Amino acid sequence: MDTGIDVRSVGVVTPRTARFSEPLRLKSGAVIDRYELVYETYGRLNADRSNAVLVCHALNASHHAAGFYAEDAQEVGWWDNMIGPGKPVDTNRFFVIGVNNLGGCHGSTGPKSVNPATGKPWGAEFPVVTVEDWVAAQARLADHLGIGQFAAVMGGSLGAMQSLAWTVSFPGRIRHALVIACAPNLSAQNIAFNEVARQAIITDPDFHGGHYYERGTTPKRGLRVARMVGHITYLSDDVMAAKFGRQLRHGRPTYSFDADFEIESYLRHQGIKFSEYFDANTYLRITKALDYFDPAFEHRGDLTRALAPATAKFLVISFTTDWRFSPERSREIVKALLDNHREVTYAEIDAPHGHDAFLLDDPRYHRLVAAYFDRIGAEAGA
Amino acid sequence: MDTGIDVRSVGVVTPRTARFSEPLRLKSGAVIDRYELVYETYGRLNADRSNAVLVCHALNASHHAAGFYAEDAQEVGWWDNMIGPGKPVDTNRFFVIGVNNLGGCHGSTGPKSVNPATGKPWGAEFPVVTVEDWVAAQARLADHLGIGQFAAVMGGSLGAMQSLAWTVSFPGRIRHALVIACAPNLSAQNIAFNEVARQAIITDPDFHGGHYYERGTTPKRGLRVARMVGHITYLSDDVMAAKFGRQLRHGRPTYSFDADFEIESYLRHQGIKFSEYFDANTYLRITKALDYFDPAFEHRGDLTRALAPATAKFLVISFTTDWRFSPERSREIVKALLDNHREVTYAEIDAPHGHDAFLLDDPRYHRLVAAYFDRIGAEAGA
Repeated sequence: MDTGIDVRSVGVVTPRTARFSEPLRLKSGAVIDRYELVYETYGRLNADRSNAVLVCHALNASHHAAGFYAEDAQEVGWWDNMIGPGKPVDTNRFFVIGVNNLGGCHGSTGPKSVNPATGKPWGAEFPVVTVEDWVAAQARLADHLGIGQFAAVMGGSLGAMQSLAWTVSFPGRIRHALVIACAPNLSAQNIAFNEVARQAIITDPDFHGGHYYERGTTPKRGLRVARMVGHITYLSDDVMAAKFGRQLRHGRPTYSFDADFEIESYLRHQGIKFSEYFDANTYLRITKALDYFDPAFEHRGDLTRALAPATAKFLVISFTTDWRFSPERSREIVKALLDNHREVTYAEIDAPHGHDAFLLDDPRYHRLVAAYFDRIGAEAGA
Repeated sequence: MDTGIDVRSVGVVTPRTARFSEPLRLKSGAVIDRYELVYETYGRLNADRSNAVLVCHALNASHHAAGFYAEDAQEVGWWDNMIGPGKPVDTNRFFVIGVNNLGGCHGSTGPKSVNPATGKPWGAEFPVVTVEDWVAAQARLADHLGIGQFAAVMGGSLGAMQSLAWTVSFPGRIRHALVIACAPNLSAQNIAFNEVARQAIITDPDFHGGHYYERGTTPKRGLRVARMVGHITYLSDDVMAAKFGRQLRHGRPTYSFDADFEIESYLRHQGIKFSEYFDANTYLRITKALDYFDPAFEHRGDLTRALAPATAKFLVISFTTDWRFSPERSREIVKALLDNHREVTYAEIDAPHGHDAFLLDDPRYHRLVAAYFDRIGAEAGA
């Protein structure tokens, strides 16, 4: 009998909040005096604190990586297929942490939080945050939780950039980095798509220069368009063709500006849904963090030198149809790591889903991650 | 001495207007009672009227395909590198016609024209026009000019769709079709990008449901975003990387929402420029014409059957780095023509520029077109 209950779920989870009062100097030079980070944990920290795994989120996700909330069993964590008892990241063995990044809109201090200096929402005054800033804040959370070294830090896409940054910023505090669907920096085309999204938001009259909270408005029009353009880049051309093709909603063209094709209807729906819950100021900052991420920048473009401080072991995974961060980009990371004689496992998964593949439960992908964590667990005695 | 004068230019050109009062029934069922088409001609029609070449424009171009205007020598035609004395389409031999399509915003009857039924601009009431409607209107222009049969109809991208439609709608009136950087229909991904552009325009508060002329507004914000997203799809990832890469305008990140990367600045500039001269209602209709184009639709997706009426000879050209209309899509057209035992020359040009390559003067591409027109000229006694 199918009870509808996933016995491999971590079950009901409750987010917690950590408060930090030591000022954090950001890469931009700006300083945040006090901040909060919302996080969730799954599984139990073992006696020697050697089994902690940090899960870093990408663009629109949050600290809620696994399980569900008591008040809403439908609100399942964004990486629930990956994390849980008996799942690739097995919470029977590992203590897993999900955290909403600084500048986020899911509870951690961000643009919609109150700026203690003014008593009003930060809005446009919230500084631009970088991947390295997030990692620095995550390290403070690790201190707070008494974790000296992570067994692994993992993420996909922008989350993977955080894994990579961990190995450089805190080489002694990370044993394994899982770098999935990543790139060592954004291409001009990647930046271009982000800039379209930003311009859609910034030019929305309801944006009010980022101070829309006080006006009681939300730049939903801009957020919808931003999400639509982003969404196109997450899917492969092939999977869009297979899922939607040229299917018409009414069998024939209506010769109007209604959503005639299924793909139009799908994208509009995605845009609307996103604009209902996501904060525009956070979206702007997250796209900027993506654009600015470039560990080689301070080394005249030499990624090998940039990654020289890393001592972690690596699992790098790419997906064949990911045209946002193509396998070629992952191979740049692998090459730089090998140049540094680092231990790297690299897999290119033949998946049709494009960039989004990292969120899906392709069995080859999941078996690979499971096998890798078996090894981490054996090392950690977990 | 470089005088700055292109001796191979057709020189000063003057647009003319043709007026039509026989009602035109569109594919949607709507009827346009009276309309005007603005056109230009280059070269001279020969005695037996066998040397006429129709040039069809793509998204944002117009009837102004070659030469320049007396009042502004900088306003050079959009395909001036292709058309002129001694150029691939040699105006010493051919009589070349450029026409602004119905629904356009460069002088032909379109949304910003006055609707004779109301005395006000058509605006949102201007019907959705299709590639086949444009071709029907172009055929009336041919009648008006006394041209029974074109030596060739040519175009790139959406212009190539018109060439293709000519061969099916009026097989007896076209001897050669040049189908460059084309596809037999848009993919789901292509439609998705168009829908993003449309939503950016339609949700701009200055759009007023398409009736912005009366309000004295222009949905420039939406047009800018629409153009930016379109522009990304015209260029290859490689050419963007080569031209812009991750170049910063100020050498270092500013950690702000100013245009930090050159690519951001370039795209913003393209968007602004476009929004200054292009009509939003026209843009909406042109993207819809692209989406709806699908000659195989009425034949249950069988392109071979759809192209069976064509009797023209074909030159089909694609560009390796065109990810908007990839070579695979051109090969679908070639296959369907070969299935019908049509005479087809097909070339895949190894060019780095993406979809925009059809507008550039790659020497292999231009030599090929020149050689093909030599043959057309020999046949036509031109």
